[in-house]
Amino acid sequence: MGELRKDYVLDRWVIIATERGKRPHQFKGESTGGKPEVDFFAPGNEDKTPAEIFRYEDEEGNWLLRSFPNKFPAVKPEGSFEAETHNKFYTFAAAYGHHEVMVETPDDRQLWDLSNDEIKMTLQGYCDIYERLKPKEGVSYVQIFKNHGKKAGTSIVHSHSQIIAYNIVPSVVLEEVEANRRNGSCAYCEIISKEKDSDRRCFENESFVAFTPYASRFPCEIWVFPKEHKKILEECNLDDLADIMKKILVKLKELDASFNYMLHYAPDGEDLHFHIEIAPRLATWAGFEYNGTIINTMTPEGAAKFYRGEE
Amino acid sequence: MGELRKDYVLDRWVIIATERGKRPHQFKGESTGGKPEVDFFAPGNEDKTPAEIFRYEDEEGNWLLRSFPNKFPAVKPEGSFEAETHNKFYTFAAAYGHHEVMVETPDDRQLWDLSNDEIKMTLQGYCDIYERLKPKEGVSYVQIFKNHGKKAGTSIVHSHSQIIAYNIVPSVVLEEVEANRRNGSCAYCEIISKEKDSDRRCFENESFVAFTPYASRFPCEIWVFPKEHKKILEECNLDDLADIMKKILVKLKELDASFNYMLHYAPDGEDLHFHIEIAPRLATWAGFEYNGTIINTMTPEGAAKFYRGEE
Repeated sequence: MGELRKDYVLDRWVIIATERGKRPHQFKGESTGGKPEVDFFAPGNEDKTPAEIFRYEDEEGNWLLRSFPNKFPAVKPEGSFEAETHNKFYTFAAAYGHHEVMVETPDDRQLWDLSNDEIKMTLQGYCDIYERLKPKEGVSYVQIFKNHGKKAGTSIVHSHSQIIAYNIVPSVVLEEVEANRRNGSCAYCEIISKEKDSDRRCFENESFVAFTPYASRFPCEIWVFPKEHKKILEECNLDDLADIMKKILVKLKELDASFNYMLHYAPDGEDLHFHIEIAPRLATWAGFEYNGTIINTMTPEGAAKFYRGEE
Repeated sequence: MGELRKDYVLDRWVIIATERGKRPHQFKGESTGGKPEVDFFAPGNEDKTPAEIFRYEDEEGNWLLRSFPNKFPAVKPEGSFEAETHNKFYTFAAAYGHHEVMVETPDDRQLWDLSNDEIKMTLQGYCDIYERLKPKEGVSYVQIFKNHGKKAGTSIVHSHSQIIAYNIVPSVVLEEVEANRRNGSCAYCEIISKEKDSDRRCFENESFVAFTPYASRFPCEIWVFPKEHKKILEECNLDDLADIMKKILVKLKELDASFNYMLHYAPDGEDLHFHIEIAPRLATWAGFEYNGTIINTMTPEGAAKFYRGEE
């Protein structure tokens, strides 16, 4: 059982996940270590992953997308999912939940190489996963995210997403919900209507818009919103979202950029305008950034020009 | 003039610092780029840094430590240091203040190679800088930090610290202050008394204690506190702090670890137990961590054993 610990006084939660851990001296010289030569996520190696949860197949019965539990899970359905505070400053729960992997393609293409229809299939996979995990006992939030490239923390090159469905709501999402509550109505509906006509607008189609946020934390950070107020991905037009995602991914491929993205769902019983935040990892956060103020060396307006192909 | 922008709705501030910036395509393949061969921070190259602010010298007049403005400042004393909100969601100020560099030694040793007396000199340098910058107009906080190693975001190998004295208080410090206010008295005084007797205690001397925090965000994260309640570094015993810092740094050298540290001063007119938080950068934060919940693969108790030399 892993541990979920809260900072003594701050609303900052840490999963202590030792199953994937190393002892201190094992970190030494890690960056020069070799990589496994076997692609465990490729067809023919299905027996080397944990037991499959679901797959999409083509007409010949070959899988196109498949999911299974993470072999080194950060959370597991063990222990007590409710947090307790001991001795005033020590707040603790089991790191409770389900940690899964979804492989997006059988071959060695990356997400940015896939067709719009294939990207739509990835989005459909997210919907199926969300629907299955959301009702599970002890699950407060289904956090769906993708890490691409070494600078984004990927250890496995084969294109895949991760899902951590667990017993707290990530603090950024809580803050977004709280900010909307303070606003009285959806702040993001208002923000989208402003950004659609700003010099930060990148792409737009019938139902989706993508823009570089005003206070971008990362060079080329970009957010994708449905134009109408939706709370979860399933309510959205997946064709339109795939179209926008493909346009963004093609630009990230131009830079061979490592990137992370995360789906921001409304937590259960709360309101939040569903969106995806994409964070290219072109620069390294130094110590300064971890303490709250972030330095970004690129203007969002310049990044938007890049996405629009104007430079 | 750089910009300081707040997120549309969150209390998250970003400095848009384009002077040190690149255009999107310039990021491509950056990791393979070469390094400058000249050590601009070494004796003989004093004319290649911006004009010196102060130096400490030995009896022969050779400098032992010197400081100067950062050549690519994230903040500058230009524009309006007060934030204004336009159009409801767009909060903006000049990125106003002073960005300085302090070189800790003339030779090619790193901070972890320095003697206790030399480390004390570094701490004395911080005191002098703090005292000079704190009263300046528009300065809300003097953020003193060090980045060591490539994974910690250093571009210059020569051992140095950075100082950004600017027009906001970093959000982590604000949250610490707020948490203490909620607690009614200094929470850290209570936490220290508990951690001193815990299995997370690493080092202790007459006036300082170091422990790995209960909810460590980073493998081998370690915090250093004066045992008595002090608000700023100048009130502390620098010999004792140098002793503790040296013990920690020697262990980090064993791992050849990249690391960041930051001095947490009490903001003006507020109360906060002064401390230093040291974040080794042994692992990469993936996308998951930027959204609030952090995964750490090492227990703080295991990390404390490493610091104590028990493994």
